[in-house]
Amino acid sequence: MEEQKKQIAILGSTGSIGTQALEVIAAYPDKYEVYAITANENVELLIKQALQFMPEAVVIANAKHYDRLKEALGHLPMKIYAGSDALCEIVEAQPIDIVLAAMVGYAGLAPVMNAIKHKKTIALANKETLVVAGELITALALEYQVPILPVDSEHSAIFQCLEPHSDIQKILLTASGGPFRHHSMEELSTVTKAQALKHPNWTMGAKITIDSATMMNKGFEVIEAKWLFNVKPEQIEVLVHPQSIVHSMVEFVDGAVKAQLGIPSMKLPIQLAFSYPERLPLAGHHLDFLKHSTLTFEAPDLHRFPCLSFAYDALKQGGNAACIINAANEIAVATFLQDKIGFLDIPRCLEYALSKASFIARPTYEDYVQTDAEVRRLITQYIHSKQA
Amino acid sequence: MEEQKKQIAILGSTGSIGTQALEVIAAYPDKYEVYAITANENVELLIKQALQFMPEAVVIANAKHYDRLKEALGHLPMKIYAGSDALCEIVEAQPIDIVLAAMVGYAGLAPVMNAIKHKKTIALANKETLVVAGELITALALEYQVPILPVDSEHSAIFQCLEPHSDIQKILLTASGGPFRHHSMEELSTVTKAQALKHPNWTMGAKITIDSATMMNKGFEVIEAKWLFNVKPEQIEVLVHPQSIVHSMVEFVDGAVKAQLGIPSMKLPIQLAFSYPERLPLAGHHLDFLKHSTLTFEAPDLHRFPCLSFAYDALKQGGNAACIINAANEIAVATFLQDKIGFLDIPRCLEYALSKASFIARPTYEDYVQTDAEVRRLITQYIHSKQA
Repeated sequence: MEEQKKQIAILGSTGSIGTQALEVIAAYPDKYEVYAITANENVELLIKQALQFMPEAVVIANAKHYDRLKEALGHLPMKIYAGSDALCEIVEAQPIDIVLAAMVGYAGLAPVMNAIKHKKTIALANKETLVVAGELITALALEYQVPILPVDSEHSAIFQCLEPHSDIQKILLTASGGPFRHHSMEELSTVTKAQALKHPNWTMGAKITIDSATMMNKGFEVIEAKWLFNVKPEQIEVLVHPQSIVHSMVEFVDGAVKAQLGIPSMKLPIQLAFSYPERLPLAGHHLDFLKHSTLTFEAPDLHRFPCLSFAYDALKQGGNAACIINAANEIAVATFLQDKIGFLDIPRCLEYALSKASFIARPTYEDYVQTDAEVRRLITQYIHSKQA
Repeated sequence: MEEQKKQIAILGSTGSIGTQALEVIAAYPDKYEVYAITANENVELLIKQALQFMPEAVVIANAKHYDRLKEALGHLPMKIYAGSDALCEIVEAQPIDIVLAAMVGYAGLAPVMNAIKHKKTIALANKETLVVAGELITALALEYQVPILPVDSEHSAIFQCLEPHSDIQKILLTASGGPFRHHSMEELSTVTKAQALKHPNWTMGAKITIDSATMMNKGFEVIEAKWLFNVKPEQIEVLVHPQSIVHSMVEFVDGAVKAQLGIPSMKLPIQLAFSYPERLPLAGHHLDFLKHSTLTFEAPDLHRFPCLSFAYDALKQGGNAACIINAANEIAVATFLQDKIGFLDIPRCLEYALSKASFIARPTYEDYVQTDAEVRRLITQYIHSKQA
């Protein structure tokens, strides 16, 4: 009997994760089929992808591109939608097996919640969803019995190391340390956007590359790990590992540590989320230890990279605190990418937001929406006042 | 309902593995009970252990110690036996759940076979059993549906990395490289017994310490891995890793590598073989990556350490070839430990044995017994002739 192809919806198909996910699917046409693709702005790439993969549905979040999309694809047997509501609703389609959440930032929250409610397996690359509302999302996934398969390389590594009968003592979350690992505070204060966009080991989207340079990304990953693996903040230790070969590790109660290693590539965690619990061959991914012959580990410097500290603080505080730092960070990074604030202003925005935004101990979904909006206003005004 | 204690028989209780196994059992008196202990020669330690753990049965292989054993323990409700047949038969006792095979060398083969036939779970520290007769032993374990849980630290690491739904691409067997990793051939030719007995990372029995210095131990581990994990010789790669923190690794078909790391300690694999599939807390085994902050890997030098090559040759040849090198090695190491041959004479004995002993393509158990005896005679004569 022929195995049925898994139907996949890719939210954020034109981004770094999305395009690699399509390459994974293209390599296994007998196993996977693209059911839907969505993008925020990049309509031309979306059209190209639609023509190559012939999905059932295509969604562009920014409605001003709708006419262009319709013009290019209207003659094909393909549903074409625009707007963020459509993006959120597309995951409901009955044939979809897996929703890959690969959009950037807070925007991932609503569609992921909807996908869980429609019992779709979640391949989660959008870590902000768990950063903002980890408690809500994990409770929902439990309620609907939906697996959340991590696509972040660190969390995929941890997931690969887990054992059904063994308790986690500790998670060792590795971090490259980013491009400014050896920078002094003074040097950090003059870092430019171009310098921050050059990551030593990974090629990623702009937002996550800046988050890596501030180590906010690692802070978000700490929060993400807490929710995915149900551990206490003090059970998560960040370890700087400049070679990015060990993707993360798990220590068990007997002291045994298990690690997943590999060349830095997102294709492996993407493919594994699609093929789990099996693995499929993946060309070009062999790790040669005679080439990568030295692996080193060091402690992160929380003084120079305070964003990592804020993440731990937010986790310990609970409630909407992580939602507050996420919103502050989204505004701060966007402003930094417009060359309007300095690199060290990013943590300042977070600190300001944590001290000023309304704390809610037991937030509902609506509270998260309000917190996000409040902090975006707050930080926009804060940046404006500093520049005036 | 109270969980029943696992009844454990320790073959070789006075050796390095045996004494550590007893410490593991002593730490969990509500989970494990010593059913039987056995030793070859060390009757005084065996008596001490018997008085501490009060096993049902005590066996001394060398019958000349029987009277001493009987005198010390005869007043206790304990069965006391002597001789290698008793050692072999003790594993049949109905209450025994796990047989830890921790004796040295070829002597492990017969009791392990008997234990399998009586459906006891095997915790295998005696690698020579699989080296000599891997095909026979694994077929027998399959026939009797008996799990063989590896206690060798490398094979335990590999076992811990396996996944039920994923095929192994490659096994990366790590090796400390031993105390002579940087020695030239000339320096190797003058190595003394005292130097060879000082292993940089592990404290072990004399025979295995010499085997580590020649890298014969790693060669045996290659053979052991082949049988335990059902892979081809070319799927096993030895990687010198002088820090002995990564205990071994598995590469899967997608390029993902999984590793098990920890401080060098045999207690962890011993305890895991007893507790599997669970893990139990193990004091003093936390691995601090800020202390072990650099891990390195390099290729082994087969020219300076030809014993490793012979192991691959024997595997590829099949039949009784591995049994031949094991017997030659046992005699050569014993003679080296008597200061009667040089360090580089050990591989010479192996080479001689491989070229002279009768090759049997499909050996039975009796063939292995004969091969072992033949090679022991052959190498004893060879050494004698060289010294004459």
